[in-house]
Order: sequence, then C-alpha cells, then structure tokens
Amino acid sequence: MKFIATPVKGMNDFLPEQMRLREYVLKMIKETYASYGFDQIETPAMEHIENLTSDQGGENEKLIFKVMKRGAELARALEKENGELADNGLRYDLTVPLSRYYANNGNQLPPIFKALQIGNVWRADKPQKGRFRQFTQCDIDILGDESIVAEIELITATTTVLHSILSKVDIKDFTVHINDRRILKAMAAYAGFREEDYNTVFIILDKLDKIGIDGVKEALLEDGFEEQAVERYTQLYKNLGEGMSCKDFCEKLTEDFIDKNVIEGLDEIMNCCQSMVKEGVKLVFDPTLVRGMSYYTGTIFEITLDNYNFSVAGGGRYDEMVGKFNNQKVCACGFSLGFERIITILSDFDTSAITRTGEKTAFLIDRKASYETIGRTFKEAAELRQNGNTVTVMPLKKNARFQVEKLESDGYTNIKKIYE
Amino acid sequence: MKFIATPVKGMNDFLPEQMRLREYVLKMIKETYASYGFDQIETPAMEHIENLTSDQGGENEKLIFKVMKRGAELARALEKENGELADNGLRYDLTVPLSRYYANNGNQLPPIFKALQIGNVWRADKPQKGRFRQFTQCDIDILGDESIVAEIELITATTTVLHSILSKVDIKDFTVHINDRRILKAMAAYAGFREEDYNTVFIILDKLDKIGIDGVKEALLEDGFEEQAVERYTQLYKNLGEGMSCKDFCEKLTEDFIDKNVIEGLDEIMNCCQSMVKEGVKLVFDPTLVRGMSYYTGTIFEITLDNYNFSVAGGGRYDEMVGKFNNQKVCACGFSLGFERIITILSDFDTSAITRTGEKTAFLIDRKASYETIGRTFKEAAELRQNGNTVTVMPLKKNARFQVEKLESDGYTNIKKIYE
Repeated sequence: MKFIATPVKGMNDFLPEQMRLREYVLKMIKETYASYGFDQIETPAMEHIENLTSDQGGENEKLIFKVMKRGAELARALEKENGELADNGLRYDLTVPLSRYYANNGNQLPPIFKALQIGNVWRADKPQKGRFRQFTQCDIDILGDESIVAEIELITATTTVLHSILSKVDIKDFTVHINDRRILKAMAAYAGFREEDYNTVFIILDKLDKIGIDGVKEALLEDGFEEQAVERYTQLYKNLGEGMSCKDFCEKLTEDFIDKNVIEGLDEIMNCCQSMVKEGVKLVFDPTLVRGMSYYTGTIFEITLDNYNFSVAGGGRYDEMVGKFNNQKVCACGFSLGFERIITILSDFDTSAITRTGEKTAFLIDRKASYETIGRTFKEAAELRQNGNTVTVMPLKKNARFQVEKLESDGYTNIKKIYE
Repeated sequence: MKFIATPVKGMNDFLPEQMRLREYVLKMIKETYASYGFDQIETPAMEHIENLTSDQGGENEKLIFKVMKRGAELARALEKENGELADNGLRYDLTVPLSRYYANNGNQLPPIFKALQIGNVWRADKPQKGRFRQFTQCDIDILGDESIVAEIELITATTTVLHSILSKVDIKDFTVHINDRRILKAMAAYAGFREEDYNTVFIILDKLDKIGIDGVKEALLEDGFEEQAVERYTQLYKNLGEGMSCKDFCEKLTEDFIDKNVIEGLDEIMNCCQSMVKEGVKLVFDPTLVRGMSYYTGTIFEITLDNYNFSVAGGGRYDEMVGKFNNQKVCACGFSLGFERIITILSDFDTSAITRTGEKTAFLIDRKASYETIGRTFKEAAELRQNGNTVTVMPLKKNARFQVEKLESDGYTNIKKIYE
C-alpha cells in the first residue's frame, strides 16, 4: 500500500500554533460582525455542478474541483461519448452559494437579511506563495437593502474588524477605495466606447497602477480601439490627484450618462463612513478601481494596507445575481475579508502573547507511579480546571528534558513531575 | 441556464437560528477541551485518493466522494481503459487525516500530542433522518501515550464536555460503556473460534442488544460455526448482570488468553474515571461492546444517553494505524463526539434563551430621512456597539409590521423607527 504523508498539493496542515492564531482572528471576526447584527449561516462545501458553471464565477469556473458521480450514474456517464462525469463541485466562492441559499430559504429570512459566512473554498489554481487551493473566506452580505445604508454598514463593520485585528500588531493605517461600476460605465460611454467593449476597457484600466496612464493608452490602442475614444478616455484619468471627490471627477457627465443620485449617494457613503472610522483609516474615491467580477452593478470597494502591496478586503453591490436563482429582484451588497492575507500579515509578528489564554499547568506522571498517585493527580487537575486553568496530565517520557522544553514552548509555565 | 435552489442531496443549509446553536456548542467544546490541554489542528478537506482507499476506513471507503483529475492528467486517464479518473477524495473521517498529519508534522509536535480536530467529513451514504452526506466531526486524540493516562484524560474530558452541553437542557444521565478488543479476542479464543473468524463473530455479538443472546447463538450457528464453540461463547455472555466488573467477567481466562495487566488497567481506568465524573454519569464494563472499526487494538468506549436510543460519542485505542503512515510505532487513543447527534437532541428543546447574547437594538431608518439623520443614527449605533450591544441599522421597509416581527423573533428587544 502506498501512503502519502504530505497534504494534497496547494493545501495546508495547520500546526497548533497556527491554529491558535486562526481561531483567535476568527473569534474577533465573529464577535465584531455579530455586534453589527450579521447572522452567521452555512452552506455545504459542495454545490450542484450546474450552479457552479453558470457563468457567474468568471475565471474561477475554470478552477473547479469536480466531484464524480457515483455508482450507476457514473457508469451511464462513462458509456456516453463526452458524458458529464461530475454531478457536484467544490464551491470556489461564497457568493454563488449565498444566492442559492437565499433562493432556497428566503421565505424564512427577514426582509433585510444580513449574513456572515465563514467557510473554506477550493480553487485548482497554480499554487504559489500565499495562494492556496483550499482557503478560508469571510464574507458579509446584506440582501434586500437597496439604500446606501447597506454600503455604510458593510464598510464601517469591515474597517472595525480590520482595525481591531491589525491594531494588535500596531498596523492602523489603511485605505478604503470606493468607486461605482455605473461611474466606470459612464466614463467609458462618455469617451465613446461601445457597451460590448466596456469589460475589455475596464480590464486594461485596472492595470493603471502598474503600467501608468501611458501604458493604458498603449494597451487600448493595441487592442484596436479608436484613437479618439482612447484619447478622450485616458484624458479623464490624468491628473487624478489625491482626495479628488466623486463629484469633481464626474463634473463632465450629464444626466444622459449617469443618474446624479449615484454621485450624491457615493459622496454620502464616503462622508458618513469617514466620520465614523478609526484614526488611521482613510476613505478615497478611486475612479480606477475596477474589481474583477462582472456581476457587480453599483458601488465597489477595496481595502489596501498603506505599507503592504495588496488588498485585504473587497466587495460591492450586485443587484442582479440572486434574482437569477429565484427569479425575483433581490438587491445585494457584500464585503469579503481576505482572511488568509490577514493571517499571512500577522504571521510575520510574534503573536503568541496575543493568543495566549491564562495559566497552563502540566502534570507529568512517572511510569512507576501507583494507581493511587494517578488518581490523586487527576483529582488535582480537575480542581484546577474547575477554577479556569488549562491543565494537561500525561506520563513523564524517558526524554523528559525534550518533553519539558516542548511544553514550555507551548506556553506551559507550571510543569510538575510526579513520581509517587 | 439551469439553477438549482436546493442544496446537494443529503447536505444542509443552516439557518441563523441553527447556526447560533451550532456555534454555541462548538464554543463549549473548544473551551472545555482546551482546558484539558488539547491543541486544535486542521487538515484539508481533501486527501490523496491512495490514503483514503488504503483499507483503514472499512465500509466508509465505499462512500468516498471522489475528486476528478484535471487538465492533461484527466485526459490521459480517460484514454486508458479503466484509468483512475480521481486523484483526490473528500475525507470520510478525521482519523486517517490525523495519521497522515502526524507522519507529516511529527517532528514539530510534542512527544505526547493531544489533538482536537473539528471539521466536516463527507460520505455518500443513503440520506435518512439525522444522517447527512456532509457532517461535522469532533475528535480528540492522544498520540504517543501508551499508558492508561490517555484513556482517563479522554473519558473525563469527553464526559465533562457532554455534561456541560447537555445539562443546559437538563439531560444529565448518561453511561460510558467500556471494553477492550483484547478481551473480545480472548473470549473468542477461549470459546474456540479461529482467529480469522473473530471479526465475523464480533459483528454478530454487536447485535446482542437487538436480537438477544438466543439470536446471537442462532446467527452464529447459521454462519456455520461449530456448535461447541458457539455454546461456550454464548454461555459467557449470559447473565451479564448490571455492574459486573471486568475482573469477574474475565475470571475464566488464564494468562494464555490475556495479559492480566489488560484487565487490571481497564478496572483502574473505570475506578479513576468514576471518581471524577459528574453526578448522573455512569461507567460500566460492557463486554458486548464491539465498535465497528477494525483498526482498534485495545480499549474501546462509547457513551449512550440513558433516555435515548443512540450513542453520542465513541472511540478507543488504535496503536497500529499511525505507524502505517510513518513506519514508526506510534501509540494512539481517541474519542469522537457525535456532534450532529448532540445538535439533533438540543434541537428538540427551545434553546434560544441559552444561545442569546445580551441586548439587541435595531434602528429602522425611513426612506425619506435626510443624509444628516442617517449619519446621526450610525453614530448612535457606533456608541452602543462600543458599549457591548448588538445593533443593526437598516432602512424601514414598506411592510414595517412584518419587518419588526421578524426582528423580534430574532431577539431584538429594542426596535426604534427613525423618521427624521
């Protein structure tokens, strides 16, 4: 028999020390979001393959781990040329399952439903540093609220969570980038692009911070877009300037291009959030923010750490998606916390003092000790535990020094050897 | 496009109310086991298919959800006659992954390693009431301890967890059944069965509580076993009597059949545990206890609720399994809590008062309210949250009565409508 000791490629075994950090962060996430009235829910790891390959997941659909049919169904599928061998797949995000969940359980849920989901997702991505094939996602979503109250709740809740976690290692400066897909579209329309080309244009715009405005121009021209439109478009994104307001950026746009309420609403979201977030948290209108998923319909947002080169949270409004499952109009807005990235950041610090909980005692019983001694030791342990202490009872190993060292590194400060 | 709103067959969507109960129980489990020095660990949901089909999992191996190979590897497998199409599978228990984990990470773990695993497992079982295709398992295991200290820790910790959870709904009477695979084998040897028939004999003995001793006799004879052996065997299990000690039951056995230390150790485990467990918890030596998995090598145990017809926890010693992964002798003993069964039991009670946490306030903002009002409301909410309250802010819906009713049923006691 061939046993393989390593975990499946791209997936992780978590050691006790790593788990203490993960559990500590999860506890803070759950408690903070609960204080905002988000209700935790859970869906299965597996989804019907039909739901996963329905074109909602973009690029992620290529990365699905498919689960094979079984028994007679598999046999039938194998007989057919090009028969579908999978009936299920592992979820690649928590948004598709949430939409299905709402369609399935909506009648038991409140008219405005605030959901917290914490769960693993799977993507058969090329594994690389910090990118795994199984990883934990933390999403909050508000369903049934078409107003900006949803955006304000999501942004204040998420910045509060991030602040409470990251301030433990003295990281307090981060930036919330806000934009709106409708503004992105209005700008593309204003420049003269055709609607069917918007997504291609946005994908190129998304690279602005890497390739600069001249790079964007070049890439658009290379893709064969009209010079006039490209010129008009790139002109908009020149001289953006720190702290430009949405109103100022959009001043060229008439009502033909955009509903003024969109601009006013976005400014109000920013005003309201800015007055509430902790010191160190900045909110900026970022007209270059694109967000990959095509299902977004309104506001989009992303949080970056000022001294790190990546985002730690992202989300937006997606008013059309849930309706595809239940054939009703259901407004929705969500924010996803980059749990694994947060853990990666925290792992660069010594967090053992943060995750430690109270006094830890170890009783090490010598192998020659009598049954009476064993009994007495267990009673003493029980009493200490009753008083809130962590106590472990175990035999004293031959290599006692190594055993004690390991216990000490695991936070045991009170180690007692029991011989009789 | 075809969307399917229901979850995958045999798997569950959990509503907020159900999640509150699950999270509450999980928190108690984690806190109690942590106070006994068990360290939480985690392994991926997926395992190499080779590890899952290595004959350690018994019947469960027939129930594996297999994960398909991808890309070129899948194409190659499809070209071959009877090519293996799966490279991974979803884990069907937490014991196989633990063994692999220990082989992979043992050098970073303490010499006696006390692990807590909480995670989902998947089995393509026929779904029925209370049996799901995805369900949560809670296992504690002690690796590297060959002494009875391991058994005592496992039993006292697990009965403490069960007592603290079930006493919330006034269930305090349960029974820990203890036996030893070596005693089972000694009895079968004493009766005259051949070693290769032991497992068949045990499977029949396991039905004793359902078919009675005459039923066992009949079944053994039907299977073609010698009448003399059957007679000698069933005689042992007649007149067991409440509270028979292991020593009394084994009095017919000489050292040829069993090491006297086994009997003495088992009695000592029972004595020590009995002196520590809460009122209402009984420990009984149960020579008819078999436990399905063939990997057990020593003590086996199971906990049943006195007024329910099923077990809520089970486990035992399996000294040979981990070594198959790392080619070293690693003693191991574990106890698995029937998490889903505990949830099923608790769901028969109104647990909302138990899982509730503090005051809950809802601010419902009328759609005509000004941005200023919205801002003021959010500030008030932030202050209340700062003081430990749960506060939700949302627009007032047209059907306000329904909205308020839903919030009340969700535990919101302080609901304030904000018009201006």
